[in-house]
Amino acid sequence: MRPTFKILATDGAARLGRLLTAHGGIDTPAFMPVGTYGTVKSMTPEELSGLGAQIVLGNTFHLMLRPGMAVIEAHGGLHRFMHWERPILTDSGGFQVFSLASLRKITEQGVLFRSPVDGSEVQLTPEDSMTVQLALRSDVAMALDDCTPYPATEEEAGASMERSMRWASRSYLHYYQNEPPGGLFGIVQGGMHAALRLASLEALLRHDWAGLAVGGLAVGEPEEERLCVLEGIVPAMPADRPRYLMGVGRPQDIVAAVLRGIDLFDCVIPTRHARNGHLFTSTGSINIRNASHQMDLGPIDAACSCYTCQNFTRAYLRHLDRCKEILGARLNTIHNLHVYLSLMRSLQEAIGQGRLAAFAASYLGERREAADAVA
Amino acid sequence: MRPTFKILATDGAARLGRLLTAHGGIDTPAFMPVGTYGTVKSMTPEELSGLGAQIVLGNTFHLMLRPGMAVIEAHGGLHRFMHWERPILTDSGGFQVFSLASLRKITEQGVLFRSPVDGSEVQLTPEDSMTVQLALRSDVAMALDDCTPYPATEEEAGASMERSMRWASRSYLHYYQNEPPGGLFGIVQGGMHAALRLASLEALLRHDWAGLAVGGLAVGEPEEERLCVLEGIVPAMPADRPRYLMGVGRPQDIVAAVLRGIDLFDCVIPTRHARNGHLFTSTGSINIRNASHQMDLGPIDAACSCYTCQNFTRAYLRHLDRCKEILGARLNTIHNLHVYLSLMRSLQEAIGQGRLAAFAASYLGERREAADAVA
Repeated sequence: MRPTFKILATDGAARLGRLLTAHGGIDTPAFMPVGTYGTVKSMTPEELSGLGAQIVLGNTFHLMLRPGMAVIEAHGGLHRFMHWERPILTDSGGFQVFSLASLRKITEQGVLFRSPVDGSEVQLTPEDSMTVQLALRSDVAMALDDCTPYPATEEEAGASMERSMRWASRSYLHYYQNEPPGGLFGIVQGGMHAALRLASLEALLRHDWAGLAVGGLAVGEPEEERLCVLEGIVPAMPADRPRYLMGVGRPQDIVAAVLRGIDLFDCVIPTRHARNGHLFTSTGSINIRNASHQMDLGPIDAACSCYTCQNFTRAYLRHLDRCKEILGARLNTIHNLHVYLSLMRSLQEAIGQGRLAAFAASYLGERREAADAVA
Repeated sequence: MRPTFKILATDGAARLGRLLTAHGGIDTPAFMPVGTYGTVKSMTPEELSGLGAQIVLGNTFHLMLRPGMAVIEAHGGLHRFMHWERPILTDSGGFQVFSLASLRKITEQGVLFRSPVDGSEVQLTPEDSMTVQLALRSDVAMALDDCTPYPATEEEAGASMERSMRWASRSYLHYYQNEPPGGLFGIVQGGMHAALRLASLEALLRHDWAGLAVGGLAVGEPEEERLCVLEGIVPAMPADRPRYLMGVGRPQDIVAAVLRGIDLFDCVIPTRHARNGHLFTSTGSINIRNASHQMDLGPIDAACSCYTCQNFTRAYLRHLDRCKEILGARLNTIHNLHVYLSLMRSLQEAIGQGRLAAFAASYLGERREAADAVA
């Protein structure tokens, strides 16, 4: 089923929406926890649902290498493999090939790389990526793109973007050859160059994408540059399609992007940071490894209603972290995902009630104050 | 509160009982999951309760070193530190000092060892062990004993047992100095020597223990030797006290010991094996790492009703194990603990219905057949 998108309310550039897929609906703005290897690290599917996750992201690159597609196809797709009945978005594998794989070689045809699992040579063309994502049976698939490095000259960024656009067309044609299980999103590239971004969008709009993503951000650029790119491109994106900002970010980055009209987010920060003891609070963040928490009988955040904060002290969490106990990773992940998913619900509510500007000002202000207090 | 023990039914030497503590009751025969560092590895307290665990074991040696007693005392004891509201049994720390600690030195006074955490010299006397266990506020505490190595000559085993008996008296006197939160168990030692075991029991019975344990088994001796020791000593143990076989064991070992009159068990096997991919089934066990499970769409055990078997395939569990995913350790642990805790319920039911011999014959027979089929 092709996902449909309905906008229920707007507040400035921000939108309250609902994306409907064959596996259910997603209230937007939405955050997608990342489930690289068919598991959002340390969580069961039921725990994710309980935290309010309505969609997770699966990584094509990782899954095609481990366990490999034969295993997942035998299960009838990624949903049944990982026992997750709600929607799944899969990326194209491109970003991982560019950032992780050794010995990659980019040609017009696609990318060649050496598998980090068994050393064999693997090819990933736009068609290959679509074949894999179709077999994963994700509800939203992503076009294969050429990820422009940061920084890049206008010439480099332009050539990379144009290749991405040719790959986008090939992705589109291959994905929609037969009746697909979901819908395909195109990805706007063009580095930090406003004109290239607009040209990329124009090229994409020759096809009828189920949604559009802004790629090539969160790659090391300063925050102002990222916001500048968003302010240049988002207003030109079709209002009736979901807009996905790939790989962003910290809570404050999400708030800033929702203010500018973004609907979908994914990022490893809440889950990866949790496993490193970095925990978000209502005014900033703490690291549970810090010796100051050794005797702290309070929760991570007294204002938080998550399972972890209701039942465990900072001292206990610090102890679990020091002992490298699995339960520590779990409790920290529950907390951080609760923070992210609650933030999305607060953003939805604020947009619905037309008070997003005030909500964002207060939210970002509290974090600035906390940062100032530390500095 | 001093735990009380009530026998509800007997079947041959086996007993169906109920041990009542300040934190609730334990139906026996019972298995205690091991929570070394204040967490049964990978599980939340609610998951443990959900699996039917009525008591967990905490390790004095580990907890006194990490996080140290000041932190746990600040929480008011181990229950609140780890958010476990049901009963806790703590060991004395002796076994770990003997098996894990480097540079230990045994004197009549106690044991000196070097902390594996920070290298400092730590002393553990019977009085120290009691002080720590009282501060942990466990429902059942264990006397400090000198763990006889295996094998040991009768002379070595005798000297070691006699020291254990002197330490048992010191433990008893120190533990009951003031009103303790739980009760203290004495530990029968004496190696594989029947006469020493009986002498040890006789020495212990000078005090009014809340229960009695058989220690110094599951230290590498053959199964027949262990059963021989049990058959020699258990009939002489007071019938009105709970009997705890320390550190045992595999499911078939537990069945064999229940047949001989044992009420309480602890072992790291279900949880440690789970993390190593070794999973128990109704006819034996499998290792999920085996390549034969790569495409296996069935559960670990089609006869099992646990969360893992209801929702996940062997192929998925093998994939999680290969990717060292935390969820794999969790799902495997849920399954193995379910197997152990269900077995205890089946044993209780069989004793209550006077059909333990038939149950045990069928249970042990199925395992022998499966082992023969493999061999």
